Amino acid sequence: MKVVYIVPGPMPEKEAKRREGLLKEWAFPTTEVEVRTVNQGPASIESMYEEYLSIPETAKLMVEAEKEGVQGAVLGCAGDPGLDAYRELTEKMVIMGPGVASMHAAALRGTRFSVLTVTDSTISSVYDLADKSGLGNKLVSVKAVNIPVLDLAKDRDATLSKLLDYGREVTKEGATAIVLGCMSMGFLEVAEDMERTLGVPVINPSKAALKLTEAFASIGYSHSKVAYHTPPKLKSGKVESLDDLLFVRN
Amino acid sequence: MKVVYIVPGPMPEKEAKRREGLLKEWAFPTTEVEVRTVNQGPASIESMYEEYLSIPETAKLMVEAEKEGVQGAVLGCAGDPGLDAYRELTEKMVIMGPGVASMHAAALRGTRFSVLTVTDSTISSVYDLADKSGLGNKLVSVKAVNIPVLDLAKDRDATLSKLLDYGREVTKEGATAIVLGCMSMGFLEVAEDMERTLGVPVINPSKAALKLTEAFASIGYSHSKVAYHTPPKLKSGKVESLDDLLFVRN
Amino acid sequence: MKVVYIVPGPMPEKEAKRREGLLKEWAFPTTEVEVRTVNQGPASIESMYEEYLSIPETAKLMVEAEKEGVQGAVLGCAGDPGLDAYRELTEKMVIMGPGVASMHAAALRGTRFSVLTVTDSTISSVYDLADKSGLGNKLVSVKAVNIPVLDLAKDRDATLSKLLDYGREVTKEGATAIVLGCMSMGFLEVAEDMERTLGVPVINPSKAALKLTEAFASIGYSHSKVAYHTPPKLKSGKVESLDDLLFVRN
Amino acid sequence: MKVVYIVPGPMPEKEAKRREGLLKEWAFPTTEVEVRTVNQGPASIESMYEEYLSIPETAKLMVEAEKEGVQGAVLGCAGDPGLDAYRELTEKMVIMGPGVASMHAAALRGTRFSVLTVTDSTISSVYDLADKSGLGNKLVSVKAVNIPVLDLAKDRDATLSKLLDYGREVTKEGATAIVLGCMSMGFLEVAEDMERTLGVPVINPSKAALKLTEAFASIGYSHSKVAYHTPPKLKSGKVESLDDLLFVRN
Amino acid sequence: MKVVYIVPGPMPEKEAKRREGLLKEWAFPTTEVEVRTVNQGPASIESMYEEYLSIPETAKLMVEAEKEGVQGAVLGCAGDPGLDAYRELTEKMVIMGPGVASMHAAALRGTRFSVLTVTDSTISSVYDLADKSGLGNKLVSVKAVNIPVLDLAKDRDATLSKLLDYGREVTKEGATAIVLGCMSMGFLEVAEDMERTLGVPVINPSKAALKLTEAFASIGYSHSKVAYHTPPKLKSGKVESLDDLLFVRN
Amino acid sequence: MKVVYIVPGPMPEKEAKRREGLLKEWAFPTTEVEVRTVNQGPASIESMYEEYLSIPETAKLMVEAEKEGVQGAVLGCAGDPGLDAYRELTEKMVIMGPGVASMHAAALRGTRFSVLTVTDSTISSVYDLADKSGLGNKLVSVKAVNIPVLDLAKDRDATLSKLLDYGREVTKEGATAIVLGCMSMGFLEVAEDMERTLGVPVINPSKAALKLTEAFASIGYSHSKVAYHTPPKLKSGKVESLDDLLFVRN
Repeated sequence: MKVVYIVPGPMPEKEAKRREGLLKEWAFPTTEVEVRTVNQGPASIESMYEEYLSIPETAKLMVEAEKEGVQGAVLGCAGDPGLDAYRELTEKMVIMGPGVASMHAAALRGTRFSVLTVTDSTISSVYDLADKSGLGNKLVSVKAVNIPVLDLAKDRDATLSKLLDYGREVTKEGATAIVLGCMSMGFLEVAEDMERTLGVPVINPSKAALKLTEAFASIGYSHSKVAYHTPPKLKSGKVESLDDLLFVRN
Repeated sequence: MKVVYIVPGPMPEKEAKRREGLLKEWAFPTTEVEVRTVNQGPASIESMYEEYLSIPETAKLMVEAEKEGVQGAVLGCAGDPGLDAYRELTEKMVIMGPGVASMHAAALRGTRFSVLTVTDSTISSVYDLADKSGLGNKLVSVKAVNIPVLDLAKDRDATLSKLLDYGREVTKEGATAIVLGCMSMGFLEVAEDMERTLGVPVINPSKAALKLTEAFASIGYSHSKVAYHTPPKLKSGKVESLDDLLFVRN
Repeated sequence: MKVVYIVPGPMPEKEAKRREGLLKEWAFPTTEVEVRTVNQGPASIESMYEEYLSIPETAKLMVEAEKEGVQGAVLGCAGDPGLDAYRELTEKMVIMGPGVASMHAAALRGTRFSVLTVTDSTISSVYDLADKSGLGNKLVSVKAVNIPVLDLAKDRDATLSKLLDYGREVTKEGATAIVLGCMSMGFLEVAEDMERTLGVPVINPSKAALKLTEAFASIGYSHSKVAYHTPPKLKSGKVESLDDLLFVRN
Repeated sequence: MKVVYIVPGPMPEKEAKRREGLLKEWAFPTTEVEVRTVNQGPASIESMYEEYLSIPETAKLMVEAEKEGVQGAVLGCAGDPGLDAYRELTEKMVIMGPGVASMHAAALRGTRFSVLTVTDSTISSVYDLADKSGLGNKLVSVKAVNIPVLDLAKDRDATLSKLLDYGREVTKEGATAIVLGCMSMGFLEVAEDMERTLGVPVINPSKAALKLTEAFASIGYSHSKVAYHTPPKLKSGKVESLDDLLFVRN
Repeated sequence: MKVVYIVPGPMPEKEAKRREGLLKEWAFPTTEVEVRTVNQGPASIESMYEEYLSIPETAKLMVEAEKEGVQGAVLGCAGDPGLDAYRELTEKMVIMGPGVASMHAAALRGTRFSVLTVTDSTISSVYDLADKSGLGNKLVSVKAVNIPVLDLAKDRDATLSKLLDYGREVTKEGATAIVLGCMSMGFLEVAEDMERTLGVPVINPSKAALKLTEAFASIGYSHSKVAYHTPPKLKSGKVESLDDLLFVRN
Repeated sequence: MKVVYIVPGPMPEKEAKRREGLLKEWAFPTTEVEVRTVNQGPASIESMYEEYLSIPETAKLMVEAEKEGVQGAVLGCAGDPGLDAYRELTEKMVIMGPGVASMHAAALRGTRFSVLTVTDSTISSVYDLADKSGLGNKLVSVKAVNIPVLDLAKDRDATLSKLLDYGREVTKEGATAIVLGCMSMGFLEVAEDMERTLGVPVINPSKAALKLTEAFASIGYSHSKVAYHTPPKLKSGKVESLDDLLFVRN
């Protein structure tokens, strides 16, 4: 079984390889994992605008992967940008959005959860994502550590320490599980430390999304084409390819 | 007061002018309305992928309009694609998403509503939009007439007749108001005929969005910057312009 | 276009004129605004009992206005007392309840909101009103400054200062917009000061209700007669007028 | 223990006596029941306007009853008009609104319920009442038999037959209990026939409200004064009596 | 009318008698109350596992009581363990779960409530119970005093004092009524002291459940057999008795 | 990695072996799967009473498995009976309830879902389970084929045909995914046929629960001990073992 992890931004190759290494560690032995990155997109995603910027190129990689016969794809951003679009454009390949996947994992492991995210600028969109997932009623709170995505790894201890502080806060508010709202947090492997220290489940979105992708892909559990229709113009043959959906005025 | 109506697709100029004419008719006398269209984008929007495709170019027009001192902007698609992004990138200009605006209008005029949309491919996203607006609990049902956007105007009578059929159906289901889920329906002015025939409010998203934009813009009611933060990289000066948020790998 | 603002209590003429002045300032140039007051009703509204007391006389003014051909009416109390009844008794005139209208405006400007109201005695009814509007799930909290309505204007600075304190509190709780829950607060124009100081949208119910009324009235967007039926005895002709609905035993 | 049943309209004495007879039959032997009617109010209640019309006179009877030391009061309309106001004006006397009480009874007896009401004109307000009660998520549907209140008893068989038809319909929709939404239906004792025929609980609002009133009154379970504050002007002594809350301009 | 109070654990007879005494005090004069206890079950209930342990024996007492012609049964645990099962196994006897009953009582007395329970180990199940009741949206918070059930009565003053502390806390959070989440708290009669001191309704689950049982039983308001079907094997005669539903492998 | 599938009823060994065979087929190659059955319990589960009957013996097998070092356990009933209890009694072993797991899987694959269950007697409990999972707002409807569990396999074609009929019905109602609400349906492998025929995802609870268990167990994602506390008497050492929690009166 092959699973691709698609980074929706032009990540340095070294970091992409490091992440691929971790994903391989986490994966089932029978899973082949490959990290792919777009050539053009946001440097990191801390706003809805950057989410949207990432979609056109990522869509191409998704469609390409499905054509190759890849069974599963993990979208490399916990805001799940473009998830519904990628599902519209594919049919058989499982595509997992780590944001929603992590919320479901939190609910499954222990009911009421909070999300700890990177910057205040992403808080509103986490609430929206929770509502979209159906789990808004299980969401206790959303807090931001206010460390830019690209700085999270610079001082892992500082990041962890802030996450622990907020983790204690949300536990007092009634959260019985915590979701980390950023893939870069995931690849820092701080969730595991937090879980040990706080004694509550802390969902690592990178790991959770991979495992759910493997679980679903191994039994062909792709998405509902009744929920995510192929764009009518493509389906009816009015346009021939993805690219033709973008119309450029002369 | 100046309000721009921004079409997130490269619409033929004749149709754009026709719409501008209608918007001028509907507007308050003191409002100057101008229709602007992007040069590149989807021919019409019938999928989430096409929604996302429309965002980058539309964002530029939004930012430009704010810089010019325009007071209000109507987003020309009832799926409200990119609304949160445009609000992140602007501060003072009111930006109205016709989908959510129409749902609020329906709730204000008479409580429980259904949405009639173009194609089955957009039904799921209407449910998501209603949840995002907070009004999911007032949404009775979503039905599609299954006429492609670009064909809606070809046979106005057929379109109206189908809309009336579904309108009767949703009224029986308990809807006390109806929202049309497509701007091209709006500019067909079928809502007005439906309202007369069915005896329930039928929200024309084109008209409702314009009027709410005027209402808000005239008193400076732009959006919450605490809900829609300026992208941190822009705010902190790490990047200088919108374009710099898109990073292209050499 | 003519819009009346109907005060559901016997307000001193001087204050009524002052409010009319402000409404005229806020209105579109083509709108004629007139303030009308009932001759008998509560001195101010700080309880549900006073809300109900205000209804019979206000209903008469509403019906009268519709008969005169007035296009829109703003109900002068943010508890929206009797709104559904007035809509039952009229057909074409837009009638706006400032409480619900302001909640919709807050949701439109920036998603999750809190309401700041006058006295603790009105807190429960604000929760009820939010549920009725459909927006209860966007309501973060309701707080009261505990200044009687008739004292709000006595020391504007003290009122503003208390509102700012509570405004900071609800912002910390996650509100990204604030609604003022009293028309007398609206006509103090403190919302505008608060918005500048706090950096979040603060809805002035007096202004928001007027603008939404103008927006709706200018396009004939009155209420759903399927949601707000004409009272059957009136519709069937069993009784001839509003007054006949009140039966007095000999 | 004394319980009064207060009819919020000027009901003919014969009918009031008949109802008193039924209430006495249903009551615990230690309960003294008395029916009281206002002298002025709506002939029947089929609209929100008539609901509001009924409040001022009913409030007086409520306050009077509390002063006499009556322990419980049943409000004689299933729309619960003025319930919150009567609770503001009293402290120790239990006051039961039959609409909300019946919804709670239905939920307690068997989870998801529908409401069968008199006329289409009351459907929207039943939805609002369910939301207010907190049980909107258990409400399957609301249907009206469209027989005017004052005609319900004219042909009991016809009324019962229509109710049975709708009862079968809502059972198919998933309702596992039914609430009758009108006190005149209650005093027809059709709920009992329906329950036998349909095999699902059918709540008689007249009976259910009486029993819950007795249950609560016997242990002093009156309402929360933190939810239903005494009107501040009364509490602070600014006005001396209920009547003084109504201000009449000279 | 006869009502049994069934303790789902092997309570010492002295305490059972003491509770019977209190129930008799609270009951209507025409109600005969009897406390019955199982011979085998949990010593007290502080976990879901103990809830489930209590069910098989309690079920037998419930079925037996119905056969005897008892009209009402109060389940002696505020977690309502097995309530749906007992309702499946009976038809005419009213069976009240004190947890859900108290939540409905709180909502009826004054809208938004918090639950104070014994130990942290029961908090999650209180949230689940509130969702099941339909009243999750009226639940402000759940707090535990962290005194084991069997120690609650050892130092009544300490228990009361802790409950008052938490009571003040939840009132500040917006609760306008409080539910005690444990029958042993109920039989300590601390709710009554709390209500006097805090000035908000405090529901004693033991008392509330009894009164609602009497109210319902006196009018034959048992449960919906469409919500709580008789187990098909029993109904169809495939097995003859309750015991036969438990199959033991040789 | 070892995963046990625990049947909460005394299933014939032949059928247990057959199911083990299927589970092995579905599992990742590195997973060792073993089916275990209780010696005493319900023959099948079609009521809440039977759900509860299954818990005490199943709990023992769960605790035993954890002691052996088993990493994951699938509970063999889609009603998830006792899930919270088993989680209270264990710490490290992942325990998956197939009912809730399948609902999350449906939401992840394609948003709004219906559940097709065995008999009418289980419909109410499916609604309750959906509310408990947090996904009640994504649940479109629950329908029963009304074939007893033990007869499902007797005529696979008849079962499939009925499921297809109901599947078409719920798709028309707006479900974009379907959950089968019974493990015996799962081991009939009808979901796969349904998915092909209907073109919407159909969740096989047996398969989905296994895969989620493997996914979670492979990364140590067990449950929240803050949501599912160890029973206080066990934790504090007041009792030594599970058996001691059941107190038998002499």
